[in-house]
Amino acid sequence: MKVDIEKRILAVNDELAGSNRELFARHGVFVLDLMASPGAGKTATILATIDALRDRYAIAVIEGDIASKVDAEKVRAHGIPAVQINTGGACHLESAMIRRAVDTLDLDALDLIIIENVGNLVCPSDFDLGETAKVMILSVPEGHDKPYKYPNIFQVSEAVILNKYDTMGVFDFDEEEFREVVKSLNGQVPVFPISATKGDGVSAWAEWLAARIDAAKGEGSE
Amino acid sequence: MKVDIEKRILAVNDELAGSNRELFARHGVFVLDLMASPGAGKTATILATIDALRDRYAIAVIEGDIASKVDAEKVRAHGIPAVQINTGGACHLESAMIRRAVDTLDLDALDLIIIENVGNLVCPSDFDLGETAKVMILSVPEGHDKPYKYPNIFQVSEAVILNKYDTMGVFDFDEEEFREVVKSLNGQVPVFPISATKGDGVSAWAEWLAARIDAAKGEGSE
Repeated sequence: MKVDIEKRILAVNDELAGSNRELFARHGVFVLDLMASPGAGKTATILATIDALRDRYAIAVIEGDIASKVDAEKVRAHGIPAVQINTGGACHLESAMIRRAVDTLDLDALDLIIIENVGNLVCPSDFDLGETAKVMILSVPEGHDKPYKYPNIFQVSEAVILNKYDTMGVFDFDEEEFREVVKSLNGQVPVFPISATKGDGVSAWAEWLAARIDAAKGEGSE
Repeated sequence: MKVDIEKRILAVNDELAGSNRELFARHGVFVLDLMASPGAGKTATILATIDALRDRYAIAVIEGDIASKVDAEKVRAHGIPAVQINTGGACHLESAMIRRAVDTLDLDALDLIIIENVGNLVCPSDFDLGETAKVMILSVPEGHDKPYKYPNIFQVSEAVILNKYDTMGVFDFDEEEFREVVKSLNGQVPVFPISATKGDGVSAWAEWLAARIDAAKGEGSE
Protein backbone atom coordinates (compact mmCIF):
# COMPACT_ATOMS: atom_id res chain seq x y z
CA MET A 1 0.00 0.00 0.00
CA LYS A 2 2.69 2.45 1.07
CA VAL A 3 4.82 1.43 -1.90
CA ASP A 4 1.87 2.06 -4.26
CA ILE A 5 1.41 5.54 -2.81
CA GLU A 6 5.11 6.28 -3.20
CA LYS A 7 5.00 5.08 -6.78
CA ARG A 8 2.05 7.38 -7.52
CA ILE A 9 3.79 10.39 -5.95
CA LEU A 10 6.90 9.62 -8.03
CA ALA A 11 4.81 9.18 -11.22
CA VAL A 12 3.15 12.60 -10.78
CA ASN A 13 6.56 14.14 -10.10
CA ASP A 14 8.15 12.47 -13.13
CA GLU A 15 5.41 13.66 -15.49
CA LEU A 16 5.97 17.29 -14.56
CA ALA A 17 9.74 16.72 -14.62
CA GLY A 18 9.38 15.68 -18.27
CA SER A 19 7.54 18.90 -18.99
CA ASN A 20 10.26 20.91 -17.19
CA ARG A 21 12.92 19.12 -19.25
CA GLU A 22 11.18 20.03 -22.53
CA LEU A 23 10.90 23.64 -21.39
CA PHE A 24 14.61 23.86 -20.55
CA ALA A 25 15.63 22.18 -23.83
CA ARG A 26 13.43 24.53 -25.86
CA HIS A 27 15.19 27.54 -24.31
CA GLY A 28 18.66 25.98 -24.49
CA VAL A 29 19.17 26.36 -20.75
CA PHE A 30 21.37 23.91 -18.88
CA VAL A 31 19.85 23.05 -15.50
CA LEU A 32 22.12 21.54 -12.85
CA ASP A 33 20.64 19.73 -9.82
CA LEU A 34 23.38 19.94 -7.18
CA MET A 35 23.01 17.45 -4.31
CA ALA A 36 25.05 16.87 -1.13
CA SER A 37 24.93 16.34 2.63
CA PRO A 38 24.31 19.28 4.93
CA GLY A 39 27.51 21.28 5.18
CA ALA A 40 29.33 19.64 2.27
CA GLY A 41 29.77 23.06 0.68
CA LYS A 42 26.96 23.34 -1.86
CA THR A 43 26.61 27.11 -1.58
CA ALA A 44 30.38 27.67 -1.58
CA THR A 45 30.69 25.46 -4.68
CA ILE A 46 27.91 27.40 -6.40
CA LEU A 47 29.64 30.72 -5.64
CA ALA A 48 32.98 29.37 -6.94
CA THR A 49 31.27 28.04 -10.09
CA ILE A 50 29.60 31.40 -10.66
CA ASP A 51 32.97 33.15 -10.38
CA ALA A 52 34.50 30.75 -12.90
CA LEU A 53 31.70 31.03 -15.48
CA ARG A 54 29.91 34.38 -15.04
CA ASP A 55 31.87 36.11 -17.81
CA ARG A 56 30.75 33.49 -20.32
CA TYR A 57 27.22 32.58 -19.26
CA ALA A 58 24.09 34.16 -17.81
CA ILE A 59 23.40 32.30 -14.56
CA ALA A 60 20.54 32.04 -12.05
CA VAL A 61 20.25 29.95 -8.89
CA ILE A 62 17.30 28.17 -7.27
CA GLU A 63 17.92 27.56 -3.56
CA GLY A 64 16.12 24.69 -1.87
CA ASP A 65 15.99 24.57 1.92
CA ILE A 66 13.79 23.16 4.65
CA ALA A 67 13.73 26.60 6.22
CA SER A 68 15.61 29.95 6.06
CA LYS A 69 16.78 32.03 3.12
CA VAL A 70 20.43 32.56 4.04
CA ASP A 71 21.78 30.80 0.95
CA ALA A 72 19.69 32.83 -1.51
CA GLU A 73 20.92 35.99 0.21
CA LYS A 74 24.55 34.88 -0.23
CA VAL A 75 24.00 34.28 -3.95
CA ARG A 76 22.20 37.60 -4.44
CA ALA A 77 25.04 39.38 -2.63
CA HIS A 78 27.21 37.85 -5.37
CA GLY A 79 25.13 39.72 -7.98
CA ILE A 80 23.28 36.67 -9.33
CA PRO A 81 19.47 36.25 -9.33
CA ALA A 82 18.33 33.64 -6.81
CA VAL A 83 14.91 32.15 -6.09
CA GLN A 84 14.43 30.63 -2.64
CA ILE A 85 12.22 27.55 -2.21
CA ASN A 86 11.38 26.50 1.34
CA THR A 87 10.15 22.91 1.34
CA GLY A 88 8.41 23.30 4.69
CA GLY A 89 9.92 20.13 6.12
CA ALA A 90 10.29 17.99 2.98
CA CYS A 91 13.70 16.37 2.56
CA HIS A 92 14.03 17.05 -1.18
CA LEU A 93 12.85 19.30 -3.99
CA GLU A 94 10.13 18.17 -6.42
CA SER A 95 9.50 19.10 -10.03
CA ALA A 96 6.41 21.20 -9.18
CA MET A 97 8.49 23.40 -6.83
CA ILE A 98 11.07 23.88 -9.60
CA ARG A 99 8.39 24.80 -12.11
CA ARG A 100 6.98 27.50 -9.83
CA ALA A 101 10.49 28.89 -9.25
CA VAL A 102 11.40 28.76 -12.95
CA ASP A 103 8.22 30.65 -13.86
CA THR A 104 9.70 33.69 -12.09
CA LEU A 105 12.84 33.62 -14.31
CA ASP A 106 13.38 34.77 -17.91
CA LEU A 107 14.63 31.55 -19.51
CA ASP A 108 15.54 33.22 -22.81
CA ALA A 109 18.03 35.39 -20.97
CA LEU A 110 19.72 32.47 -19.17
CA ASP A 111 22.32 29.82 -20.08
CA LEU A 112 22.64 28.04 -16.74
CA ILE A 113 20.36 27.47 -13.76
CA ILE A 114 21.95 25.87 -10.72
CA ILE A 115 19.51 24.21 -8.31
CA GLU A 116 20.82 23.74 -4.77
CA ASN A 117 18.87 20.78 -3.46
CA VAL A 118 18.11 20.18 0.24
CA GLY A 119 21.14 18.90 2.18
CA ASN A 120 20.57 15.15 2.06
CA LEU A 121 22.30 12.13 0.45
CA VAL A 122 19.11 10.09 0.18
CA CYS A 123 15.82 11.69 -0.91
CA PRO A 124 17.01 14.10 -3.65
CA SER A 125 18.47 11.21 -5.66
CA ASP A 126 14.98 9.69 -6.10
CA PHE A 127 13.34 12.80 -7.57
CA ASP A 128 13.67 13.85 -11.20
CA LEU A 129 13.28 17.65 -11.37
CA GLY A 130 13.62 17.84 -15.15
CA GLU A 131 17.25 18.92 -14.72
CA THR A 132 19.77 18.46 -17.53
CA ALA A 133 22.17 16.73 -15.12
CA LYS A 134 22.42 15.75 -11.48
CA VAL A 135 25.81 16.32 -9.87
CA MET A 136 26.78 15.54 -6.28
CA ILE A 137 29.32 16.88 -3.83
CA LEU A 138 30.98 14.75 -1.18
CA SER A 139 33.22 16.60 1.25
CA VAL A 140 36.41 15.03 2.60
CA PRO A 141 35.37 15.24 6.30
CA GLU A 142 32.36 13.00 5.55
CA GLY A 143 34.69 10.06 4.87
CA HIS A 144 35.57 7.81 1.95
CA ASP A 145 33.04 5.11 2.94
CA LYS A 146 29.97 7.09 1.90
CA PRO A 147 29.52 5.42 -1.53
CA TYR A 148 28.98 2.09 0.29
CA LYS A 149 26.23 3.60 2.40
CA TYR A 150 24.50 5.91 -0.07
CA PRO A 151 25.06 4.16 -3.41
CA ASN A 152 22.05 5.57 -5.25
CA ILE A 153 23.16 9.21 -5.24
CA PHE A 154 26.55 8.19 -6.68
CA GLN A 155 24.77 6.20 -9.39
CA VAL A 156 22.46 8.97 -10.59
CA SER A 157 25.16 11.70 -10.62
CA GLU A 158 26.92 12.65 -13.87
CA ALA A 159 29.88 14.13 -11.98
CA VAL A 160 31.17 13.85 -8.41
CA ILE A 161 32.79 16.88 -6.79
CA LEU A 162 35.11 16.04 -3.87
CA ASN A 163 35.07 19.25 -1.83
CA LYS A 164 37.24 20.46 1.08
CA TYR A 165 40.09 18.65 -0.62
CA ASP A 166 42.49 20.97 1.20
CA THR A 167 41.58 19.21 4.48
CA MET A 168 42.74 15.82 3.19
CA GLY A 169 45.65 15.89 5.65
CA VAL A 170 43.33 16.39 8.63
CA PHE A 171 41.01 13.42 7.96
CA ASP A 172 41.60 9.73 7.40
CA PHE A 173 40.22 9.78 3.82
CA ASP A 174 41.37 6.99 1.49
CA GLU A 175 41.05 8.61 -1.95
CA GLU A 176 42.08 5.48 -3.83
CA GLU A 177 39.39 3.37 -2.17
CA PHE A 178 36.86 6.17 -2.68
CA ARG A 179 37.57 6.38 -6.41
CA GLU A 180 37.42 2.59 -6.78
CA VAL A 181 34.01 2.30 -5.12
CA VAL A 182 32.63 5.26 -7.09
CA LYS A 183 33.89 3.61 -10.29
CA SER A 184 32.25 0.31 -9.36
CA LEU A 185 28.93 2.13 -8.86
CA ASN A 186 29.09 4.47 -11.84
CA GLY A 187 31.70 3.52 -14.44
CA GLN A 188 33.17 6.57 -16.07
CA VAL A 189 31.79 9.33 -13.83
CA PRO A 190 34.41 12.09 -13.42
CA VAL A 191 35.58 12.99 -9.90
CA PHE A 192 36.68 16.62 -9.39
CA PRO A 193 38.70 17.33 -6.22
CA ILE A 194 38.18 21.00 -5.30
CA SER A 195 38.46 23.46 -2.48
CA ALA A 196 35.42 25.66 -3.09
CA THR A 197 36.42 28.36 -0.63
CA LYS A 198 40.06 28.54 -1.80
CA GLY A 199 39.42 27.96 -5.50
CA ASP A 200 41.76 24.99 -6.04
CA GLY A 201 40.49 22.57 -8.67
CA VAL A 202 37.44 24.64 -9.53
CA SER A 203 38.51 25.34 -13.12
CA ALA A 204 38.56 21.64 -14.14
CA TRP A 205 35.02 21.23 -12.79
CA ALA A 206 33.89 24.50 -14.40
CA GLU A 207 35.30 23.51 -17.81
CA TRP A 208 33.44 20.17 -17.68
CA LEU A 209 30.27 22.11 -16.91
CA ALA A 210 30.97 24.70 -19.64
CA ALA A 211 31.23 21.94 -22.26
CA ARG A 212 27.85 20.61 -21.13
CA ILE A 213 26.30 24.10 -21.19
CA ASP A 214 27.56 24.66 -24.74
CA ALA A 215 26.08 21.34 -25.83
CA ALA A 216 22.68 22.29 -24.32
CA LYS A 217 22.75 25.70 -26.06
CA GLY A 218 23.54 24.04 -29.41
CA GLU A 219 20.59 21.69 -29.07
CA GLY A 220 18.26 24.46 -27.92
CA SER A 221 18.96 26.71 -30.92
CA GLU A 222 18.37 24.01 -33.55
CA MET B 1 -4.19 14.16 -0.16
CA LYS B 2 -0.45 13.66 0.15
CA VAL B 3 -0.49 15.30 3.57
CA ASP B 4 -3.27 12.93 4.69
CA ILE B 5 -1.24 9.92 3.62
CA GLU B 6 1.81 11.21 5.46
CA LYS B 7 -0.29 11.77 8.56
CA ARG B 8 -1.59 8.21 8.39
CA ILE B 9 1.93 6.77 7.98
CA LEU B 10 3.09 8.83 10.96
CA ALA B 11 0.06 7.74 13.04
CA VAL B 12 0.78 4.04 12.41
CA ASN B 13 4.44 4.63 13.25
CA ASP B 14 3.62 6.52 16.44
CA GLU B 15 1.28 3.83 17.71
CA LEU B 16 3.97 1.16 17.49
CA ALA B 17 6.52 3.63 18.90
CA GLY B 18 4.31 3.91 22.00
CA SER B 19 4.34 0.14 22.34
CA ASN B 20 8.16 0.08 21.94
CA ARG B 21 8.46 2.75 24.64
CA GLU B 22 6.39 0.71 27.10
CA LEU B 23 8.51 -2.36 26.35
CA PHE B 24 11.76 -0.47 27.00
CA ALA B 25 10.42 1.09 30.21
CA ARG B 26 9.23 -2.28 31.50
CA HIS B 27 12.73 -3.69 31.09
CA GLY B 28 14.48 -0.57 32.39
CA VAL B 29 16.48 -0.19 29.18
CA PHE B 30 17.56 3.26 28.04
CA VAL B 31 17.24 3.57 24.25
CA LEU B 32 19.14 6.35 22.52
CA ASP B 33 18.21 7.42 18.96
CA LEU B 34 21.39 9.01 17.60
CA MET B 35 20.86 11.23 14.54
CA ALA B 36 23.30 13.15 12.32
CA SER B 37 24.34 13.96 8.76
CA PRO B 38 26.30 11.42 6.76
CA GLY B 39 29.89 11.44 7.95
CA ALA B 40 29.30 13.47 11.13
CA GLY B 41 30.86 10.66 13.14
CA LYS B 42 27.91 8.63 14.45
CA THR B 43 29.74 5.32 14.50
CA ALA B 44 32.91 6.85 15.98
CA THR B 45 30.80 8.52 18.69
CA ILE B 46 29.07 5.21 19.44
CA LEU B 47 32.43 3.44 19.78
CA ALA B 48 33.76 6.19 22.07
CA THR B 49 30.58 6.06 24.17
CA ILE B 50 30.87 2.28 24.46
CA ASP B 51 34.48 2.62 25.65
CA ALA B 52 33.42 5.15 28.29
CA LEU B 53 30.46 3.13 29.63
CA ARG B 54 31.03 -0.58 28.92
CA ASP B 55 32.41 -1.30 32.41
CA ARG B 56 29.22 0.01 33.99
CA TYR B 57 26.45 -0.97 31.58
CA ALA B 58 25.46 -3.79 29.22
CA ILE B 59 25.17 -2.22 25.78
CA ALA B 60 23.82 -3.22 22.36
CA VAL B 61 23.68 -1.26 19.11
CA ILE B 62 21.11 -1.14 16.32
CA GLU B 63 22.66 0.12 13.07
CA GLY B 64 20.41 1.78 10.51
CA ASP B 65 21.67 2.23 6.96
CA ILE B 66 20.28 2.54 3.46
CA ALA B 67 22.65 -0.20 2.39
CA SER B 68 25.79 -2.03 3.62
CA LYS B 69 26.66 -3.51 7.01
CA VAL B 70 30.07 -1.89 7.61
CA ASP B 71 28.99 -0.06 10.76
CA ALA B 72 27.55 -3.15 12.45
CA GLU B 73 30.80 -4.96 11.70
CA LYS B 74 32.81 -2.15 13.33
CA VAL B 75 30.67 -2.36 16.48
CA ARG B 76 30.90 -6.16 16.65
CA ALA B 77 34.68 -5.94 16.24
CA HIS B 78 34.49 -3.82 19.40
CA GLY B 79 32.90 -6.79 21.23
CA ILE B 80 29.38 -5.37 21.43
CA PRO B 81 26.27 -7.01 19.94
CA ALA B 82 24.96 -5.14 16.89
CA VAL B 83 21.85 -5.61 14.76
CA GLN B 84 21.97 -4.19 11.24
CA ILE B 85 18.83 -2.72 9.67
CA ASN B 86 18.97 -1.89 5.96
CA THR B 87 16.14 0.45 5.09
CA GLY B 88 16.29 -0.40 1.39
CA GLY B 89 16.29 3.23 0.32
CA ALA B 90 14.25 4.87 3.09
CA CYS B 91 15.83 7.98 4.59
CA HIS B 92 15.03 7.16 8.23
CA LEU B 93 14.25 4.32 10.62
CA GLU B 94 10.67 3.56 11.69
CA SER B 95 9.31 2.02 14.87
CA ALA B 96 8.42 -1.29 13.15
CA MET B 97 12.05 -1.76 12.04
CA ILE B 98 13.21 -1.12 15.61
CA ARG B 99 10.70 -3.60 17.02
CA ARG B 100 11.95 -6.36 14.70
CA ALA B 101 15.57 -5.59 15.64
CA VAL B 102 14.79 -5.43 19.37
CA ASP B 103 13.04 -8.82 19.22
CA THR B 104 16.45 -10.38 18.49
CA LEU B 105 17.96 -8.89 21.70
CA ASP B 106 17.61 -9.99 25.34
CA LEU B 107 16.26 -6.80 26.92
CA ASP B 108 16.57 -8.09 30.49
CA ALA B 109 20.33 -8.38 30.00
CA LEU B 110 20.73 -4.83 28.63
CA ASP B 111 20.96 -1.34 30.16
CA LEU B 112 21.53 0.72 27.01
CA ILE B 113 20.61 0.31 23.35
CA ILE B 114 22.12 2.86 20.97
CA ILE B 115 20.30 3.24 17.65
CA GLU B 116 22.38 4.73 14.85
CA ASN B 117 19.81 6.32 12.57
CA VAL B 118 20.31 6.85 8.81
CA GLY B 119 22.65 9.76 8.02
CA ASN B 120 20.18 12.58 7.50
CA LEU B 121 19.29 15.85 9.28
CA VAL B 122 15.68 15.84 8.09
CA CYS B 123 13.63 12.62 8.03
CA PRO B 124 14.79 10.93 11.30
CA SER B 125 13.61 13.90 13.34
CA ASP B 126 9.97 13.27 12.26
CA PHE B 127 9.81 9.63 13.35
CA ASP B 128 9.27 8.52 16.94
CA LEU B 129 10.92 5.10 17.37
CA GLY B 130 9.84 4.69 21.00
CA GLU B 131 13.35 5.73 22.08
CA THR B 132 13.96 7.15 25.57
CA ALA B 133 15.77 10.14 24.07
CA LYS B 134 16.81 11.52 20.71
CA VAL B 135 20.29 13.03 20.58
CA MET B 136 21.97 14.60 17.55
CA ILE B 137 25.53 15.10 16.42
CA LEU B 138 26.66 18.08 14.37
CA SER B 139 30.25 17.98 13.17
CA VAL B 140 32.35 21.13 12.98
CA PRO B 141 33.06 20.82 9.20
CA GLU B 142 29.30 21.04 8.49
CA GLY B 143 29.25 24.65 9.65
CA HIS B 144 27.63 26.66 12.43
CA ASP B 145 24.64 27.70 10.26
CA LYS B 146 22.97 24.28 10.29
CA PRO B 147 20.45 25.07 13.08
CA TYR B 148 18.98 27.79 10.82
CA LYS B 149 18.47 25.30 8.02
CA TYR B 150 17.46 22.16 9.90
CA PRO B 151 15.70 23.56 12.97
CA ASN B 152 13.48 20.57 13.70
CA ILE B 153 16.25 18.11 14.53
CA PHE B 154 17.73 20.61 17.00
CA GLN B 155 14.30 21.02 18.59
CA VAL B 156 13.59 17.33 19.15
CA SER B 157 17.06 16.47 20.51
CA GLU B 158 17.69 16.24 24.26
CA ALA B 159 21.42 16.79 23.81
CA VAL B 160 23.59 18.11 20.98
CA ILE B 161 27.05 16.60 20.43
CA LEU B 162 29.46 18.87 18.55
CA ASN B 163 31.90 16.38 17.02
CA LYS B 164 35.28 16.84 15.28
CA TYR B 165 35.84 19.69 17.72
CA ASP B 166 39.60 19.22 17.22
CA THR B 167 39.19 20.58 13.66
CA MET B 168 37.79 23.90 14.90
CA GLY B 169 40.97 25.67 13.73
CA VAL B 170 40.59 24.36 10.18
CA PHE B 171 37.01 25.53 9.58
CA ASP B 172 35.27 28.86 9.91
CA PHE B 173 32.91 27.69 12.70
CA ASP B 174 31.42 30.38 14.95
CA GLU B 175 30.76 28.46 18.17
CA GLU B 176 29.15 31.42 19.94
CA GLU B 177 26.62 31.96 17.16
CA PHE B 178 25.99 28.20 16.98
CA ARG B 179 25.24 28.00 20.71
CA GLU B 180 22.98 31.05 20.56
CA VAL B 181 20.87 29.67 17.71
CA VAL B 182 20.64 26.24 19.35
CA LYS B 183 19.53 27.92 22.56
CA SER B 184 16.88 29.94 20.72
CA LEU B 185 15.52 26.70 19.22
CA ASN B 186 15.74 24.48 22.29
CA GLY B 187 16.24 26.39 25.56
CA GLN B 188 18.37 24.41 27.96
CA VAL B 189 19.63 21.63 25.69
CA PRO B 190 23.23 20.73 26.61
CA VAL B 191 25.94 21.01 23.92
CA PHE B 192 28.89 18.59 24.27
CA PRO B 193 31.99 19.41 22.19
CA ILE B 194 33.88 16.17 21.58
CA SER B 195 36.47 14.56 19.36
CA ALA B 196 35.10 11.04 19.05
CA THR B 197 38.22 9.57 17.46
CA LYS B 198 40.63 11.23 19.92
CA GLY B 199 38.44 10.96 23.02
CA ASP B 200 38.44 14.62 24.06
CA GLY B 201 35.20 15.70 25.73
CA VAL B 202 33.66 12.23 25.59
CA SER B 203 33.52 11.81 29.39
CA ALA B 204 31.20 14.83 29.91
CA TRP B 205 28.79 13.45 27.31
CA ALA B 206 29.07 9.91 28.71
CA GLU B 207 28.32 11.10 32.27
CA TRP B 208 25.21 12.94 31.08
CA LEU B 209 24.10 9.72 29.38
CA ALA B 210 24.99 7.60 32.45
CA ALA B 211 22.74 9.74 34.65
CA ARG B 212 19.88 9.21 32.19
CA ILE B 213 20.53 5.43 32.03
CA ASP B 214 20.45 5.22 35.84
CA ALA B 215 17.16 7.11 35.89
CA ALA B 216 15.66 4.68 33.32
CA LYS B 217 16.85 1.65 35.34
CA GLY B 218 15.31 3.05 38.50
CA GLU B 219 11.95 3.53 36.82
CA GLY B 220 12.11 0.07 35.18
CA SER B 221 12.70 -1.78 38.47
CA GLU B 222 9.82 -0.15 40.32
